[in-house]
Amino acid sequence: MALEYKLLYESKECNARLGEIHTPHGVIETPIFMPVGTKATVKTMTPDELKDLEAQIILSNTYHLYLRPGHSLVKEAGGLHKFMNWDRPILTDSGGFQVFSLGKMRKITEEGVVFKSHIDGSEHFISPEKAVEIQNCLGSDIMMAFDECTPYPATYEYAKQSMERTTRWAKRCKEAHKNTDKQALFGIVQGSMYKDLRLESLRQLVELDLPGYALGGLSVGEPAEIMKEVLDYMVHEMPRNKPRYLMGVGSPDYIFEAVERGIDMADCVMPTRMARNGAFMTSKGRITIKNAVHRNDFSPIDDECECYCCKNYSRAYLRHLFKENEILGARLATIHNLFFLINLMKNIRISIREERFLEFKNDFYQKYGYKK
Amino acid sequence: MALEYKLLYESKECNARLGEIHTPHGVIETPIFMPVGTKATVKTMTPDELKDLEAQIILSNTYHLYLRPGHSLVKEAGGLHKFMNWDRPILTDSGGFQVFSLGKMRKITEEGVVFKSHIDGSEHFISPEKAVEIQNCLGSDIMMAFDECTPYPATYEYAKQSMERTTRWAKRCKEAHKNTDKQALFGIVQGSMYKDLRLESLRQLVELDLPGYALGGLSVGEPAEIMKEVLDYMVHEMPRNKPRYLMGVGSPDYIFEAVERGIDMADCVMPTRMARNGAFMTSKGRITIKNAVHRNDFSPIDDECECYCCKNYSRAYLRHLFKENEILGARLATIHNLFFLINLMKNIRISIREERFLEFKNDFYQKYGYKK
Repeated sequence: MALEYKLLYESKECNARLGEIHTPHGVIETPIFMPVGTKATVKTMTPDELKDLEAQIILSNTYHLYLRPGHSLVKEAGGLHKFMNWDRPILTDSGGFQVFSLGKMRKITEEGVVFKSHIDGSEHFISPEKAVEIQNCLGSDIMMAFDECTPYPATYEYAKQSMERTTRWAKRCKEAHKNTDKQALFGIVQGSMYKDLRLESLRQLVELDLPGYALGGLSVGEPAEIMKEVLDYMVHEMPRNKPRYLMGVGSPDYIFEAVERGIDMADCVMPTRMARNGAFMTSKGRITIKNAVHRNDFSPIDDECECYCCKNYSRAYLRHLFKENEILGARLATIHNLFFLINLMKNIRISIREERFLEFKNDFYQKYGYKK
Repeated sequence: MALEYKLLYESKECNARLGEIHTPHGVIETPIFMPVGTKATVKTMTPDELKDLEAQIILSNTYHLYLRPGHSLVKEAGGLHKFMNWDRPILTDSGGFQVFSLGKMRKITEEGVVFKSHIDGSEHFISPEKAVEIQNCLGSDIMMAFDECTPYPATYEYAKQSMERTTRWAKRCKEAHKNTDKQALFGIVQGSMYKDLRLESLRQLVELDLPGYALGGLSVGEPAEIMKEVLDYMVHEMPRNKPRYLMGVGSPDYIFEAVERGIDMADCVMPTRMARNGAFMTSKGRITIKNAVHRNDFSPIDDECECYCCKNYSRAYLRHLFKENEILGARLATIHNLFFLINLMKNIRISIREERFLEFKNDFYQKYGYKK
């Protein structure tokens, strides 16, 4: 078995839980936030810096790596871990989401998806079997089944067909997957915002007895309240003895909401993308460093933060770097934002163990300026 | 005294020499290569990484910092060292070269230079006194006198007037400089490619008894042979008991040629700029990483190199990063090129001490593909 989930502790005050995911490249403590390294690099960062931040697992994108540099090249390099010099766990998505969000002129059939590359317009075909083959070449510890990421909004009829196809594709992924001792295949629950479809999707996927399950098709433009509603009725229904992964979510509030409901894993490009635009997440809310108010502010971004950026650099200097488009600015902001989220998740884990998760969440929301 | 030069050893086979420059922020071993941090950051690098590379001193640009973020802000921050988190020596140029190369619609009078900012076209005036004031605010260990960087080619008459003005300006810089216990002011020898003007410039500046002297107005477009000729007759004429600095030169061959003639300090943006364009300096010559030949080459850039880039990443991965414009590519290339030059200078120092500098130079030229 490529993956083992150990449930360590369940909160008494909510559905939050602590666990461990054992993979061929090490153990992940859950709940966990996964930084995104789309193109075999977490933008601006070295793998060593990610380790300094205590990143335990990163996510990389099958769609991008398939197009460039190509999965065969990555395989020839000895797999993604070796190619990018990261020896801790990697999760790869299936490419499903990107085919639908980035690819152009797509055509979906039962067989798979024909789409045009967002880079050069070249035509490509990805089937469930192909998505598995690509991820087998990449050698990720956790791979995702190829799904149809149902857009929002979708009619009930479309959402139903799409969900059922996702199940059939998951089955084909499982059959195509030959490297089960080194790579674990997770299923993705779809069904748009329809409760019965979501539950049915989960039921069908659970029949396949996959080593983990994800909630897909959220954070695709639906109102925050609807997403929370789906989490409300879904997460605790997901198998208790397997990791539960919420795809594409990583703002602090959604991390809290998801963990409270029993989610174990989350990923998002938001903290790193924000960083490159000069937006810093802090314990007191968001800071836009280019604002003139920081011009001669020689205090750190967050005086409660222990990251390399906050311990060594002032807002005035960071503002200067961003005004001048200096790469060091993007680097320091990325270090800060990733530290912020990874450290937040660490403190969330501690608060769950000490049965004060809800208190911790309330305090955070108050300081950060979120509505409760 | 802000600066002390100790001559440690003079080669028996050429004019190369070993020394130490003692500054308020530490000791520099000479001959030394100085990475350039134009806008208070050596592009892509943290100060800690520069220390890992054993960078002993960096250069920063008065012209750029004067325009943005402004020298007053840097002073308010506690000086350039504190602003950018670098506690080793800093040399700042005078802005002279940039006013002439970057500024627009300049007007030179005896008083100083009126120019328009290359950023927003705003009009500015820099005099020798102003250049000193700015550098006093920056707090660099070594500051440069404001000079007129004579363009190439220049008529004898123009070069003579320009050189004499540079002397008068150096005198005014010395008079304006009030922070002599913490900052050392170097003079800049001009005179274009005319031997008598160069020697006269040096003679006049030596009368001012400044703590160090630089050769300016070289590497401004003149043929390589002419530059070598100037070095030939100039360097050994410069005071033996003071540091000799060749401005703006940093290709491996010119480092060898300059050191052989007695130069102690050199700086250049070339290694870092090349790096950001994907050009790597190696013991066997230059590598352009985007070339298709590196697509599936899983060997390091330079298998003799001990830098972080070469010990951990393949050409195939670096090519991928550059093809995708990933910041990590620019970072790794910068680390490599700076390591290459800093390490080259370290080995040059060892070879001088062991009286095998010329042999080392010849071997290097042969491997690198230079003509001797």
